[in-house]
Amino acid sequence: MASIDLNSDLGESFGAWRLGDDEAMLDLVTSANVACGFHAGDPTTLLNTCRAASERAVRIGAQVGYRDLAGFGRRFLDVAPADLTADVIYQIGALDGLAQTVDSAVAYVKPHGALYNTIVHHRDQARAVVAAVVAYDPTLPVLGLPGSVFLAEAEAAGLRTVAEAFADRTYTPAGELVPRTEPGAVLSDPGLVADRVLRLVERGEIEAVDGSVLHTRADSVCVHGDSPAAVAMAAAVRARLDASGVDMTPFV
Amino acid sequence: MASIDLNSDLGESFGAWRLGDDEAMLDLVTSANVACGFHAGDPTTLLNTCRAASERAVRIGAQVGYRDLAGFGRRFLDVAPADLTADVIYQIGALDGLAQTVDSAVAYVKPHGALYNTIVHHRDQARAVVAAVVAYDPTLPVLGLPGSVFLAEAEAAGLRTVAEAFADRTYTPAGELVPRTEPGAVLSDPGLVADRVLRLVERGEIEAVDGSVLHTRADSVCVHGDSPAAVAMAAAVRARLDASGVDMTPFV
Amino acid sequence: MASIDLNSDLGESFGAWRLGDDEAMLDLVTSANVACGFHAGDPTTLLNTCRAASERAVRIGAQVGYRDLAGFGRRFLDVAPADLTADVIYQIGALDGLAQTVDSAVAYVKPHGALYNTIVHHRDQARAVVAAVVAYDPTLPVLGLPGSVFLAEAEAAGLRTVAEAFADRTYTPAGELVPRTEPGAVLSDPGLVADRVLRLVERGEIEAVDGSVLHTRADSVCVHGDSPAAVAMAAAVRARLDASGVDMTPFV
Amino acid sequence: MASIDLNSDLGESFGAWRLGDDEAMLDLVTSANVACGFHAGDPTTLLNTCRAASERAVRIGAQVGYRDLAGFGRRFLDVAPADLTADVIYQIGALDGLAQTVDSAVAYVKPHGALYNTIVHHRDQARAVVAAVVAYDPTLPVLGLPGSVFLAEAEAAGLRTVAEAFADRTYTPAGELVPRTEPGAVLSDPGLVADRVLRLVERGEIEAVDGSVLHTRADSVCVHGDSPAAVAMAAAVRARLDASGVDMTPFV
Repeated sequence: MASIDLNSDLGESFGAWRLGDDEAMLDLVTSANVACGFHAGDPTTLLNTCRAASERAVRIGAQVGYRDLAGFGRRFLDVAPADLTADVIYQIGALDGLAQTVDSAVAYVKPHGALYNTIVHHRDQARAVVAAVVAYDPTLPVLGLPGSVFLAEAEAAGLRTVAEAFADRTYTPAGELVPRTEPGAVLSDPGLVADRVLRLVERGEIEAVDGSVLHTRADSVCVHGDSPAAVAMAAAVRARLDASGVDMTPFV
Repeated sequence: MASIDLNSDLGESFGAWRLGDDEAMLDLVTSANVACGFHAGDPTTLLNTCRAASERAVRIGAQVGYRDLAGFGRRFLDVAPADLTADVIYQIGALDGLAQTVDSAVAYVKPHGALYNTIVHHRDQARAVVAAVVAYDPTLPVLGLPGSVFLAEAEAAGLRTVAEAFADRTYTPAGELVPRTEPGAVLSDPGLVADRVLRLVERGEIEAVDGSVLHTRADSVCVHGDSPAAVAMAAAVRARLDASGVDMTPFV
Repeated sequence: MASIDLNSDLGESFGAWRLGDDEAMLDLVTSANVACGFHAGDPTTLLNTCRAASERAVRIGAQVGYRDLAGFGRRFLDVAPADLTADVIYQIGALDGLAQTVDSAVAYVKPHGALYNTIVHHRDQARAVVAAVVAYDPTLPVLGLPGSVFLAEAEAAGLRTVAEAFADRTYTPAGELVPRTEPGAVLSDPGLVADRVLRLVERGEIEAVDGSVLHTRADSVCVHGDSPAAVAMAAAVRARLDASGVDMTPFV
Repeated sequence: MASIDLNSDLGESFGAWRLGDDEAMLDLVTSANVACGFHAGDPTTLLNTCRAASERAVRIGAQVGYRDLAGFGRRFLDVAPADLTADVIYQIGALDGLAQTVDSAVAYVKPHGALYNTIVHHRDQARAVVAAVVAYDPTLPVLGLPGSVFLAEAEAAGLRTVAEAFADRTYTPAGELVPRTEPGAVLSDPGLVADRVLRLVERGEIEAVDGSVLHTRADSVCVHGDSPAAVAMAAAVRARLDASGVDMTPFV
């Protein structure tokens, strides 16, 4: 029987500003990538999100990002590797501290936004993130893009790696994400998204923007939680997977 | 034989801005109150300070503060108790994460600046800080002012409390610190400061600003690390204590 | 014929976080209190809001606040008067610079959130804000609560003062706002709010929470832009005023 | 008679953190590049620096930078051009507002740190900065590196451009600054620096790191104010120029 993990970016509100519907998403996913305060997430938001995840036995991952609230961590920042390592340890520790007060803990690490995209190729920053995870807890798995320098460096360092696909993002023929700044980068039709996820889980196939078919393996599928149609999409994906007998299994 | 713990506020640089001489102070103190990023301390600074403390077997405390870099945590902020609790957990967790990567850990909690002064009287904020420590790790002791609401609430919650005196600050006849905004609040003469500390350690006495004598017990004495004469003062205090046969014993 | 100015807090989005519907509100109000970046508002948001206001000939006011993004400026911060004066000048100048690039300019100053409430009573901070406006441009009027220390200090300094009432907030019998932290502080029924505004404009009366009637004069009425029902409320108020023949006149 | 303008980066303290000796530098330079709060400079610091500059009739320039306090604006940030334009207008306006309250005004614009270096080549960001200056006040000159895309775009937009050389930085044979991350990038010997500046002013020559001689024109020479030897260097430069009869003339 096919199985998959479903993850989403949560805990991304900040102070008076609300983003996404964490409670609704937590009813649908098996893993919650919770922000850590550098790109989003004030401590109260993070604590509440961790509590809601813990109550539902949804795993908590540390979604570490660049120190850039104004840019939501979506802008490349040329941070020195040693500083990036310290930034990432700080973020994991902060979230883990909050999670542990609600009977959970950080169970994996997933880089966010521009950091995620940068370390597909940028070896120094990829190594800096890997070094942080190794230093903090070398048993923590990391989520990343299949084929990325990040996952290669993580494997070389002995970390468990989790290959991830995106439900609501389109892919280039080379298997990379179409940048958000380009038209057609983000999908919003729940039915279409559900179809794509099921095809990926059952057959290991993703259709790229040029119509070609990518063959890939994914241990986890990400449905973003911050778009208007996020809950509807995640619900459609979850319903399609449940109806098709796919086992919703956390990757660890 | 008399014994005392000597603590100092460290890790208070931020990015390009340097404050204090952490390495020199760590050769003199037995406990390091390391900033946690909210009032001061970028992650690289915090990591380096934790590493230098760990190498010298100096204990690390989490110096938690208000989220106010521009004010260095020295301005009262009317933060709601639930938010303050989350802020404090976040800070402890972040520093603990960094400390653990250098073979140490957060061993106690000491509030900083305006938060320290506020919870001498402000019961809601005092309880919020206590709640954070209890939630994070109820075995962590807390440092505070003798007679403060904070230490009373901490004791009521079952935390170990550590009464603290200040080497370089003057006291009112009521045993409170003279506010920094008033003249004569801060002492800078190393010899005078060393005399006061020795008198406190050996006889439990502090001379208040009006010449009256306070009788108090202190488990730890703080020498600030950010004043120009900080290292000279700490060195004078340490030399006087060593010469007088006082045992430099961490409070735990 | 009765006349009134209608103002609203706008430009309060920040980066990826959206708050309120500025475009819709700008079609209804005569004055826009635009955030200045300290409690809310990134420069792009502020510029876009200024442009949209300028296109509609809606006046722009500088909504200055405490430096506290995480608290949205709604928490008292014990900032020293000299620092507050510099903070306020900085904010007015920044917004004025943006406004002038879209053929408008800052036409008045209105403190935000906790700063607004604090300077109802806090003379030192009230004077600090007044000093900032006097230094920046003594011809700028200031909006504030009738009877506040702020308006008294502003008048004493020769500034033009504009008494303000709140459409969607309830009042104590003493004429102060019921704090947001108390139940019933914020009104959300468009019809009720419209009734209250018309009664205020035509008869100078506000019903307090205990049923007593306050007699007051208001040169401007604030409809908040960040609540879910904000646009509906503002539309109801505007429609009621238009239907009753009230002249929508900016206060200057 | 040869003439030159001498500029320095000032106003770069932040809250409790002091950087540089603004008062001493202001006695030596003719132009002060004052930070604007994004990479450094709280409003009180900026106001005090503007006042001290105004009292000495030293011109004030807006030193605009990336929004990155933790990195002191020294890390490339991939900010979208429209956002960068708004960021720069905001910064110029804020500083101009402060400067005008002390009988001065922003008289020119000089990008800071990584932004300065980026727009030597990055056309989109260069244009974004130029667009901000044009929108704010097209009569403001801009300082930049000779041969940079920034100065070329500024000229094309009709701005007055001011070519700048650095007293305490070394150059590649191509005429670019050796990056701060490389050894030998920064000079600290006052006599050597003074020699280089005089040679540049009198003969238009700079010796590059490989010993080759660059021929260049500079309207202004920058002496950094944040290095330990900054005041000594600036004093040596000023004394050498004065002794050689060079006229200290602001570039405008």
